[in-house]
Amino acid sequence: MSKIKTASIAALLLTAATAWAQKPLTLKNTVPGGTEFYEHYNYPVRGQFVSNSDVFVFNDNEGFHIGNDVIPRQKVNKILTNNKKQPMSYVLDWQNSESVWVYSAKAAAAYGINLKNNTITDSITQISDEGDIDLAPDFRHAAVSVKPDLFVDGASGNHKVNEQTTDGIVFGQSVHRDEFGIEKGTFWSESGRLLAFYRMDESMVGEYPIVDITAREAAVKPIRYPMAGETSHEVRIGIYNVDNQDTVYLKTASPVNRYFTNIAWSPDDQFLFVAEINREQNHLWLNQYSAADGSLVKTLFEETSPEWVEPCIAPLFVSNNQFVWVSERDGFKHLYLFDIKTLKTQQLTRGNWCVTALYGCNRESGEIFFQANEQGYLTRDIYKVNLNGKMTRLSSGYGVHTARFSKACGRFVDDFSAPDYAILSTLRNAADGKVIDTLKNVRNTYEGYTLPIIKTVYLKSADGRFDLCGRLILPADFDSTKTYPVIDYMYGGPHSQLVDASWLYGASTWKLYFAQQGYIVFTMDNRGTESRGVEYEHCIHRQLGTCEMEDQMVGINYLRSLPYVDTARIGIHGWSFGGFMTISMMTTHNDVFKAGVAGGPVCDWSLYEVMYGERYMDTPQENPDGYARNCVADSIGNLRGRLLVIHGDIDPVVVWQNSLRLLQNAVDADVLVDYAIYPQHEHNVIGHNRVHLFKRILQYFDDFLK
Amino acid sequence: MSKIKTASIAALLLTAATAWAQKPLTLKNTVPGGTEFYEHYNYPVRGQFVSNSDVFVFNDNEGFHIGNDVIPRQKVNKILTNNKKQPMSYVLDWQNSESVWVYSAKAAAAYGINLKNNTITDSITQISDEGDIDLAPDFRHAAVSVKPDLFVDGASGNHKVNEQTTDGIVFGQSVHRDEFGIEKGTFWSESGRLLAFYRMDESMVGEYPIVDITAREAAVKPIRYPMAGETSHEVRIGIYNVDNQDTVYLKTASPVNRYFTNIAWSPDDQFLFVAEINREQNHLWLNQYSAADGSLVKTLFEETSPEWVEPCIAPLFVSNNQFVWVSERDGFKHLYLFDIKTLKTQQLTRGNWCVTALYGCNRESGEIFFQANEQGYLTRDIYKVNLNGKMTRLSSGYGVHTARFSKACGRFVDDFSAPDYAILSTLRNAADGKVIDTLKNVRNTYEGYTLPIIKTVYLKSADGRFDLCGRLILPADFDSTKTYPVIDYMYGGPHSQLVDASWLYGASTWKLYFAQQGYIVFTMDNRGTESRGVEYEHCIHRQLGTCEMEDQMVGINYLRSLPYVDTARIGIHGWSFGGFMTISMMTTHNDVFKAGVAGGPVCDWSLYEVMYGERYMDTPQENPDGYARNCVADSIGNLRGRLLVIHGDIDPVVVWQNSLRLLQNAVDADVLVDYAIYPQHEHNVIGHNRVHLFKRILQYFDDFLK
Repeated sequence: MSKIKTASIAALLLTAATAWAQKPLTLKNTVPGGTEFYEHYNYPVRGQFVSNSDVFVFNDNEGFHIGNDVIPRQKVNKILTNNKKQPMSYVLDWQNSESVWVYSAKAAAAYGINLKNNTITDSITQISDEGDIDLAPDFRHAAVSVKPDLFVDGASGNHKVNEQTTDGIVFGQSVHRDEFGIEKGTFWSESGRLLAFYRMDESMVGEYPIVDITAREAAVKPIRYPMAGETSHEVRIGIYNVDNQDTVYLKTASPVNRYFTNIAWSPDDQFLFVAEINREQNHLWLNQYSAADGSLVKTLFEETSPEWVEPCIAPLFVSNNQFVWVSERDGFKHLYLFDIKTLKTQQLTRGNWCVTALYGCNRESGEIFFQANEQGYLTRDIYKVNLNGKMTRLSSGYGVHTARFSKACGRFVDDFSAPDYAILSTLRNAADGKVIDTLKNVRNTYEGYTLPIIKTVYLKSADGRFDLCGRLILPADFDSTKTYPVIDYMYGGPHSQLVDASWLYGASTWKLYFAQQGYIVFTMDNRGTESRGVEYEHCIHRQLGTCEMEDQMVGINYLRSLPYVDTARIGIHGWSFGGFMTISMMTTHNDVFKAGVAGGPVCDWSLYEVMYGERYMDTPQENPDGYARNCVADSIGNLRGRLLVIHGDIDPVVVWQNSLRLLQNAVDADVLVDYAIYPQHEHNVIGHNRVHLFKRILQYFDDFLK
Repeated sequence: MSKIKTASIAALLLTAATAWAQKPLTLKNTVPGGTEFYEHYNYPVRGQFVSNSDVFVFNDNEGFHIGNDVIPRQKVNKILTNNKKQPMSYVLDWQNSESVWVYSAKAAAAYGINLKNNTITDSITQISDEGDIDLAPDFRHAAVSVKPDLFVDGASGNHKVNEQTTDGIVFGQSVHRDEFGIEKGTFWSESGRLLAFYRMDESMVGEYPIVDITAREAAVKPIRYPMAGETSHEVRIGIYNVDNQDTVYLKTASPVNRYFTNIAWSPDDQFLFVAEINREQNHLWLNQYSAADGSLVKTLFEETSPEWVEPCIAPLFVSNNQFVWVSERDGFKHLYLFDIKTLKTQQLTRGNWCVTALYGCNRESGEIFFQANEQGYLTRDIYKVNLNGKMTRLSSGYGVHTARFSKACGRFVDDFSAPDYAILSTLRNAADGKVIDTLKNVRNTYEGYTLPIIKTVYLKSADGRFDLCGRLILPADFDSTKTYPVIDYMYGGPHSQLVDASWLYGASTWKLYFAQQGYIVFTMDNRGTESRGVEYEHCIHRQLGTCEMEDQMVGINYLRSLPYVDTARIGIHGWSFGGFMTISMMTTHNDVFKAGVAGGPVCDWSLYEVMYGERYMDTPQENPDGYARNCVADSIGNLRGRLLVIHGDIDPVVVWQNSLRLLQNAVDADVLVDYAIYPQHEHNVIGHNRVHLFKRILQYFDDFLK
């Protein structure tokens, strides 16, 4: 086991079962959707900063806490019901400490409420459940996207932004399947006078038939799903002016095979910035457009990569002429200051670590606030850096710190979690990180319960170049003289990290329950996962699954070296990319695994969508060998162990065709694959049915691994 | 066990393993589609009568045997290939001993071949694989139906019969989902001058989305599937005249909610007869139409039933004015002679048994030839009856006799099979049944193989009124001092009989293989199955599953009374109606069954189609309680044993929605159901994949029953 950096095992975190009776873990209290789960969930303090101040309003069952004042939730609902409105679901935004915008799911509407004189000051109707409401920063207007249309609601009434739509064209929706950090389709300028929005034409995209079995007779509800190598959608960006209700469209290059990402406004509303990427995703143009007429002002800079570029964070403006740009150009994700006038770039952060989030900037002090894993790849800390590159750490304590900053970055909430600490939310001063108030403090969300033993192990990647960290969960009554079956739970795909220094080393709590049932549960992140730098992350290019499996086998070989692991009872489980990995591992190393469970698996990358699929694999036409080698639908004939495949029948992400193709090939190859469907579930089984899912997974391992 | 008529067990049929090594059964040699299966299949002699003679041409690998002459198959193919045609697939019809019509699947065409002068005399192109070729009795024309169109091909060329079609209207296809003995959509008059055909308008019928996952991106191929209680299709009947190429349509009552069945021509081409049935299927009108103008001549008679009428055999004309009609009006299926002139009816056969097939009549002698179970419900024999009702049995030997008669009923082939006799095909004289020649004689298709022990047991139906016969298959090395797991295989639906006096008591051979694996395999037909008379068959009305289960529990209780049955290891398996029965039994008697496998199950009768569904259940609107009580999708929460449900994802008979709904309800009820899909298979898994299916079923019982 030469690859094991430290064979000694890390700290025992949680006390095992004591002599007196402790409460047992159950599916109900360890699986999201379980009736007792949320009592034990380590969510950070609920609340948000008042829009233009450093006041943090936190919520609990009592109501909304603003400083020492408490506004009962019933007070808000009483104002609503007095005005014959439905009760609120959640707060959209606090305009100031007296004015709040709340959303009512029942009414599909938002209401502006003045808490001082108990009146409804404004309301916005969302029209349908599928709509989105995006309030302008000045609260004078709201963008309301109701597929396929986009409306702007304000003092002058409700205006439809787009022209008449034809089938397949949508306005104001998120585009490019969320693969570039895009989470919405409307972008207000700082003044609230201009609204940038996406127009996506999907009429040329193939329709995938999603079938609704709840109809009297099953009915098709097709989705536009461009598969790798096939025709993709075309996106344009419009700018709507709330004063004159005019719209101009950016005069971009042809939208055919081009992605328009990371939209940002200059603070003065004059310019819109777009990171544009070619279909091959190896070339980026950061373009500046005139908001007045949509014309291209200039290309500020370009970035290229032999593998891919993938900007996921929009430019953050420090002033009208300077913005912070996040780039992997030196091999790690770092901050750069770009000057629009001089076109000069200045690197602000550097080192063998990554910026993992960009929170904002204080334009007065010129300080930029961000999160990074500079303290080690399991950790996340909060930092500031000034325009000269002087960096200061604002958080302390080994673990994972996540922040919510006020708009002007005067204060922030630090949501902290450590392997042995569930959640500590503190309100802090942004300038120095000093604690102003403790908002939430829960050390152990399963106090009084019998918890398993959690350990970490440090291994080396198969190419010997990178550290990997495995997390081992042992039954509470672990006896090193016995042997145990192991379940290796993995994901392994880009933009993921399963093992970190947060509560329970990041373990989702169903794994604790499985350990209680007598399994050792192991998890390790492999090359290709997030925030480890370009060399670690990009080795997967054109061969998804290959390096990932090599590393996962390092973990497996470590497990097999343990005297208390029964090498004849090694199981494997994963979902989505992890489902793909599960089947890949079982068909490539078919003498290793006795049983596996693969959920929502990609079984043939040519059935996956354009944006994610081609970034990592190029097109099937450009990389036929890579697609063939990593097609588990085709290699399923190699299966020897017992495999359960699970799929949601309306999965719009990894479409059902994937596992159905795999089953068809398995039948033709005379191989038996077990199967489960979660009807009318999408890519993940959520809600109370998730408990049923884990009951099934456990049953499968009990049947064939135990 | 007071219900057991005879606890003593019937004859031991097959010798068990002898001291020396015998060959073992395998899935390959016991499952249709297996590479060695057809060597062991007890098919009767292949061949057919020459169209207008008593000459029987039988086929084997050598060629076509006509008397003592053998025409090698290669000779036919050489004529074809010499004329640059594709080789033949099978014989369509023998026009005379020198002229044969053969079909070539590769060419999608039929060829008339003169074997004397080695020429192709005529050819008909079918155009597409989905087409059908129906040769006129005079061989001068053929009806060629190529969905949605109908053509008539002949000396004057190829004519399209129908007007331009609009979406949802088809011509010349079978209609009413084959529920009234309808197997085709074209009907030649005896002269070959007139062609009656169906026109079916399905445009008002709901479309069920069948998804083709073999497309680059999965694609919908909808089928018109009218579900119980929903809008059904509308059928009309046209008559095409080959001489003037005119078409007239019958002037029937409104085709809305009316079925048009059992089409027959008078021998003189003057009249067309149609058995018309209301949507409720409890009222039949036997109508006579003028072929000249389509007008209704008269309604000859009506039949009604408190439950249902279901004529499945068309009128058989003895002369222009007299036909034989098969009716259940006296409680059993019998022959009646009807006179068109006098409107008088004369019952020809009677007794507590059923006519099971009507073969034809000799118009000169006035004798009618048919099959019946007069010798006992496990048997089938061949009979003739004259117009005075004098009946003569033409077959001998306990077992199942099936006949093929020459057109004029001068001779017939008797295909005989008995519990201990695989197949004996003899050519016989129709007048007295005397054997002319033995065409095939195979006593045991598994000679030299170790076969299990097969026994019958006679029980009483749950209401005490009817005999039931169970078939018990015991392992070859059966030891009565041991205990065995049992698999109860059932179907149980109308128009079925699984246990009869044919080879192996009708057992499909995979059951022999399962017995070899250590299971006892039991099967018994219940009330509601075929050819036992109205009272036995109609008790299922408005409550499909209820009486059937009561009877099946008689079988289960018998099994539980056997000292060598392990009552803790009772399994159950069935397909289609048998899949429905399997789930019904497991949810109703949920402490009885340890494991079950249900294939292609109806899970909610409201998801089944109009013609079959409403016959037995009325509409969901008329019988909400019956639908609710027998909905296994709703009762699945009662499941306690292990259940594997299997479905073909393009099943057009029991649509996939059935089992998907069941799975959805199972998840919501917190019940685990195992599942398997056979991608791109329809209602049954056929071809070589059927071996895989039985491998899976066996694995499931090995996992959870053994």
